[in-house]
Amino acid sequence: MPVGTRATVKGVTTPQLRELGADVLLANTYHLFLRPGSDIVRDAGGLHAFMNWDRAILTDSGGFQVFSLADTLKVSDEGVEFRSILDGSRHRWTPEDNVQIQNDLGADIIMQLDECPPYPADKDRVATAVRRSAEWAARCKAAHRRQDQALFGIVQGGVYDDLRLESIERLVGLELSGFGIGGYSVGEPHELMLESLSVVAPAIPADKPRYLMGVGNPTSILEAVALGVDMFDCVLPTRTARTGTAFSSAGRMNLRNAQYARDFGPLDPQCTCSTCTQYSRAYLRHLVTMKEMLGAILLSVHNLHFLLDLTARAREAIEVNTYGEFLSAWRASPAANDY
Amino acid sequence: MPVGTRATVKGVTTPQLRELGADVLLANTYHLFLRPGSDIVRDAGGLHAFMNWDRAILTDSGGFQVFSLADTLKVSDEGVEFRSILDGSRHRWTPEDNVQIQNDLGADIIMQLDECPPYPADKDRVATAVRRSAEWAARCKAAHRRQDQALFGIVQGGVYDDLRLESIERLVGLELSGFGIGGYSVGEPHELMLESLSVVAPAIPADKPRYLMGVGNPTSILEAVALGVDMFDCVLPTRTARTGTAFSSAGRMNLRNAQYARDFGPLDPQCTCSTCTQYSRAYLRHLVTMKEMLGAILLSVHNLHFLLDLTARAREAIEVNTYGEFLSAWRASPAANDY
Repeated sequence: MPVGTRATVKGVTTPQLRELGADVLLANTYHLFLRPGSDIVRDAGGLHAFMNWDRAILTDSGGFQVFSLADTLKVSDEGVEFRSILDGSRHRWTPEDNVQIQNDLGADIIMQLDECPPYPADKDRVATAVRRSAEWAARCKAAHRRQDQALFGIVQGGVYDDLRLESIERLVGLELSGFGIGGYSVGEPHELMLESLSVVAPAIPADKPRYLMGVGNPTSILEAVALGVDMFDCVLPTRTARTGTAFSSAGRMNLRNAQYARDFGPLDPQCTCSTCTQYSRAYLRHLVTMKEMLGAILLSVHNLHFLLDLTARAREAIEVNTYGEFLSAWRASPAANDY
Repeated sequence: MPVGTRATVKGVTTPQLRELGADVLLANTYHLFLRPGSDIVRDAGGLHAFMNWDRAILTDSGGFQVFSLADTLKVSDEGVEFRSILDGSRHRWTPEDNVQIQNDLGADIIMQLDECPPYPADKDRVATAVRRSAEWAARCKAAHRRQDQALFGIVQGGVYDDLRLESIERLVGLELSGFGIGGYSVGEPHELMLESLSVVAPAIPADKPRYLMGVGNPTSILEAVALGVDMFDCVLPTRTARTGTAFSSAGRMNLRNAQYARDFGPLDPQCTCSTCTQYSRAYLRHLVTMKEMLGAILLSVHNLHFLLDLTARAREAIEVNTYGEFLSAWRASPAANDY
């Protein structure tokens, strides 16, 4: 899922996103609650109408931002109080408030409010977050009024396998539509995440989607798919594009590098996106070094294509039962060190 | 002509420009000479290949930038010495050097190197610029090696009608492909430009294109067309877009204005562009106030459409001999104060 934090995937129009084959976009409740306000999005007819996107949308709950970006003032079983990063204003969310906000935003998939402990955190702290998040999931479920929106719970538990399994057990009885897997990719080593995920992902009921939140490096995605994960989101494709960096079949490329000044070949010769088929490395380097908007636009399109194409090929391999070979070939490729 | 200073119309892809119906883009020799360098553009196969644009391109000579942006070190009959705005490096252009650079860039239309006096400037200074520019035009013509590129001269003379007419007379004998009209829109009052232009434009041979350089406000364009001008360029559509400003049939709109926060109607109800048919004022205001790239992109597309559509309708009116009525209707419209 390309990320459109403020109801826009940075630098990319919705017709371009359709052409790229994106099926689901992610938008951030925390940011949209602050600006323009969920009431304005509701009055516009919901996020689909507001941002002109007729395919699926998922909103996170904003829990991650409340605990990572914002000045968190108070967390209790009742809910959370925080300060806006924009103007310092104080806000208070119960799980019920948060569901109401997401009902107003009107995405197809909404996420429960959860508590996200930092990494590292001691086990008692994580255990509290697991218990509280499960109680909040039940309250979100009870408060949820729009049956056209699928509500996902979120598995917490940090890197403690027993707490992860407890978290899943607590959520399973709630008849939620899917499972977010939160609390990874928050600073822990890559290998530790995959090791933990190898216990966690298979423990989630196989008939519900498993969504690994905030993970978006190509190799991490493919390794997690092997462990049974179905959905991903990450700002990486567009954020790295704005710094002049491209995913490629040869690994990550920094287009500011002088070696590309007279390189008139395509960005990635193996890629079929509109950037690679129309523009050269030399032109992209010129745009990036001159800080031209078009550089960020063209690299965003390419990076989004790269991940959407990679996951499309992963799906195809799963369908014809060759995912093992597909993953082995990836691991042996020069792009594999991108995780 | 949309302006693509550094071989990119800021924020807009070349497929979008084709869809907008742009037939000619302008690129700036001064900027491209400095970065990436005209040798790199030449080695890429010229500007068309470098920026992926298969329709026409015009390059200015860079004279205007040398005299307005750069630290001009020395001007003599021989040529001009200046410092780069990017790194302070010193450069020297004779008219012959400048033609060689534009031959390398490979546009379809190239402009002579000229001397652009500031406004106001005393008559002696302007007279010198007129004489020198005409001599440089002859030297450009003699040095020009690519017969697939049309070379335009540039009429100077400030607001002195007799000098303007002398400038035209000096250029007419050189068998140039067209006439740029330079030295306007440099700070003089709008009315003074049109008054002067009413003498200057008709004095240029009617079988050659007349190109009013750097003028791009809707009303100025339509008034100048009435006086016989054929071509225009301006950064206005994209530059104002990046500040959140839109042309419209109701006059210029500042999308940062709070009055649009809950305005879910189209930007300009009379406009058929992809921005107006897909996105609301409220959404555009949200993007602009949040400084999202997509705001600048969508307003750039709209503003370019606005001027390209306006000039297309002006051409149609000329063809069916109703330009007088067309201009009267414009003058009576709320958009007419945009000049």
